[in-house]
Amino acid sequence: MATPLSPLAVPLPELPPLAGVRLGAAEAGIRYKGRTDVVMAELAPGTTVAGVFTKSKCPGAPVVWCKAALKGGKARMVVVNAGNANVFTGKAGRDACTASAAAAAKLAGCPAKQVFLSSTGVIGEPLPYTKLIIALPGLHKKLSASNWEAAARGIMTTDTFPKAATRVAKIGGVDVRITGIAKGSGMIAPDMATMLCFIFTDAKIPAPVLQKMLSKGVEPTFNCTTVDSDTSTSDTVLLFATGQTKHPAVSAAGGRIVSDFAAKLTEVLHDLALQVIRDGEGAQKLVRIDVSGAVSGKSAKKIGMSIANSPLVKTAIAGEDANWGRIVMAVGKAGEPADRDKLAVAVGGVQMARQGGVVPGYDETPVVAHMKGQEIHIAVDIGLGKGKSTVWTCDLTHGYIDINGSYRS
Amino acid sequence: MATPLSPLAVPLPELPPLAGVRLGAAEAGIRYKGRTDVVMAELAPGTTVAGVFTKSKCPGAPVVWCKAALKGGKARMVVVNAGNANVFTGKAGRDACTASAAAAAKLAGCPAKQVFLSSTGVIGEPLPYTKLIIALPGLHKKLSASNWEAAARGIMTTDTFPKAATRVAKIGGVDVRITGIAKGSGMIAPDMATMLCFIFTDAKIPAPVLQKMLSKGVEPTFNCTTVDSDTSTSDTVLLFATGQTKHPAVSAAGGRIVSDFAAKLTEVLHDLALQVIRDGEGAQKLVRIDVSGAVSGKSAKKIGMSIANSPLVKTAIAGEDANWGRIVMAVGKAGEPADRDKLAVAVGGVQMARQGGVVPGYDETPVVAHMKGQEIHIAVDIGLGKGKSTVWTCDLTHGYIDINGSYRS
Repeated sequence: MATPLSPLAVPLPELPPLAGVRLGAAEAGIRYKGRTDVVMAELAPGTTVAGVFTKSKCPGAPVVWCKAALKGGKARMVVVNAGNANVFTGKAGRDACTASAAAAAKLAGCPAKQVFLSSTGVIGEPLPYTKLIIALPGLHKKLSASNWEAAARGIMTTDTFPKAATRVAKIGGVDVRITGIAKGSGMIAPDMATMLCFIFTDAKIPAPVLQKMLSKGVEPTFNCTTVDSDTSTSDTVLLFATGQTKHPAVSAAGGRIVSDFAAKLTEVLHDLALQVIRDGEGAQKLVRIDVSGAVSGKSAKKIGMSIANSPLVKTAIAGEDANWGRIVMAVGKAGEPADRDKLAVAVGGVQMARQGGVVPGYDETPVVAHMKGQEIHIAVDIGLGKGKSTVWTCDLTHGYIDINGSYRS
Repeated sequence: MATPLSPLAVPLPELPPLAGVRLGAAEAGIRYKGRTDVVMAELAPGTTVAGVFTKSKCPGAPVVWCKAALKGGKARMVVVNAGNANVFTGKAGRDACTASAAAAAKLAGCPAKQVFLSSTGVIGEPLPYTKLIIALPGLHKKLSASNWEAAARGIMTTDTFPKAATRVAKIGGVDVRITGIAKGSGMIAPDMATMLCFIFTDAKIPAPVLQKMLSKGVEPTFNCTTVDSDTSTSDTVLLFATGQTKHPAVSAAGGRIVSDFAAKLTEVLHDLALQVIRDGEGAQKLVRIDVSGAVSGKSAKKIGMSIANSPLVKTAIAGEDANWGRIVMAVGKAGEPADRDKLAVAVGGVQMARQGGVVPGYDETPVVAHMKGQEIHIAVDIGLGKGKSTVWTCDLTHGYIDINGSYRS
């Protein structure tokens, strides 16, 4: 079944070379036919790395591999395959990682622990890693600084468009670039990161500093998005700093010297996270939910996620129905402090309900028009405190059922 | 849009009169046309009552009314309307309850606090309670001991079949009857009870004892079911004991004298809870999930609910795909102790996965046949402890999207 392009798709931005990164994609024939399914990125010596991963108690073998490799703080190679997630594959899964990393390390001339692996696709089937290993030498020969689009396409599974974002940041007056690619469409409720996301910069930043900035950056971005509440076994965000650009030294995650870099990194994470939601399985509408007035930021996020994950809210949005009763239901079930008689709900900027009831004289006309659009805005004021959060989701449509009632078969 | 009869529907059982209960239904025209939408049950003087309600922070006005009325422990009248939930209706909602209870109390010749009210339907629209009050005197005149089916039908909203269950229990060698009716189809993830359920017995049981037995009975029944993870604002289970049958005195919730009654009460609750799931919006399959080997019973239930609420698991079941990878994902995201390498998964009694991978030589044929049936059985052994739980759900189909993308409009 070919899934049509998401109506919320955005074009791939122009992706200039980034000093210290050479990449490419090849056909290993792991699951898909007639398309690339393995991606490699070779990184300059001295590249530092940071990573965040799924909090799933059943993580995939590559997640376990990356967590161990991350302790060294150095990276020379990234290898990603699509079509098979190498999850719940027992010893065979660990063997696949060890063998793939060894093969890639030989090509880069580095220790295996400087190779980062990711896999995405079907869960529970052994990864045919000999196919992967056979494809690596040819792929390595073709690596180039201009292959960003090929890399973004090579990691897709049920994605309907390739996802990338790039920004230029200043560190001590010097321009550095940040470029990321991501994939993800279903099984998206990142608890730490989304399915797979790889970000590269030519800045020179020590690994512990990089880790702090990444961990902080994913919180308001990937960790505030959901397609279907199903947290993946493979969620991975890796950030690599090749150190190829000369700029004043960075030694800590805070302070003025890195403030622009941190801001641009968050922009890249936010841009990629929203591209994933725009490609949510079956999505027809992108939904922004602002929660304010909660007792804390954490409480606001939990209420926002309760709304964003409610099948009744999501189907109402698909049906272009501004059904604020279902929004109230989702606030009520979140388990967080809320008081019906202090609650206010607005859709498309129009106040619909406040103080426990519908706004007197409420006119649905502008809201009906807003609901027909592609970008929906819901604002809920809990009226109890100063806690705020913004979360993002998509609607729940027949397309989701089509895709997931027949994905594996 | 008429929703076709659920393929999982069960016929209404024969419902004999129950001493001390007279009931009936009428057309008040609150929302629906050409069907009954208000139900009344008059109870003999001396009837005791127990209740459990939604834990939503935005409960409906009738829930607030019933919680207050419950403190008296006595009931003479139940009035239920369908089509409007009287939720998030502010002062108008409270006024509707006060006026309706006063009108019903006058008919029964009892204090208003002995009238129990429930409403189900659209959220956020004021209940046109004058229509309700106008209908009550005519309805009161028609009450009869044999109107159970009319009552079960009068409380339906998106339900496709009426739901009732009855059992005979022995208290000290004397037969007493327990009969319950329920409604519910969507917004079903009871945190205390489901949408609406009314149970009656002719036994004589003090209110505090009745409350203990009801609270215990809903735990493994209603509270272990989910259609769509969306806990309602109106969940209510009320249990009335008319005391019309002479039997040895009951003074405590435990002990041999009430053991059969408690068991039969749990059977009625279980039967009704499963009827609600069988009528889950768009449901084509009834799904039983047994979790064992968790660190505690609570942990097992949380893992079971994580599986039962996973859109990816539910759509796979709709697609008749025994996608155990998604089951593993749902175990992993539950946030409860689990160890991938100790996990075992069986579907239809066939072990598919254990110790972190697929069972060697696993033959999918019998599982494929099982998945084509109407009743699906998933068993997950966490392998860590002795905690067990069984939860029930249905699949997620195009029918759910159809119903909920256009329910209100």
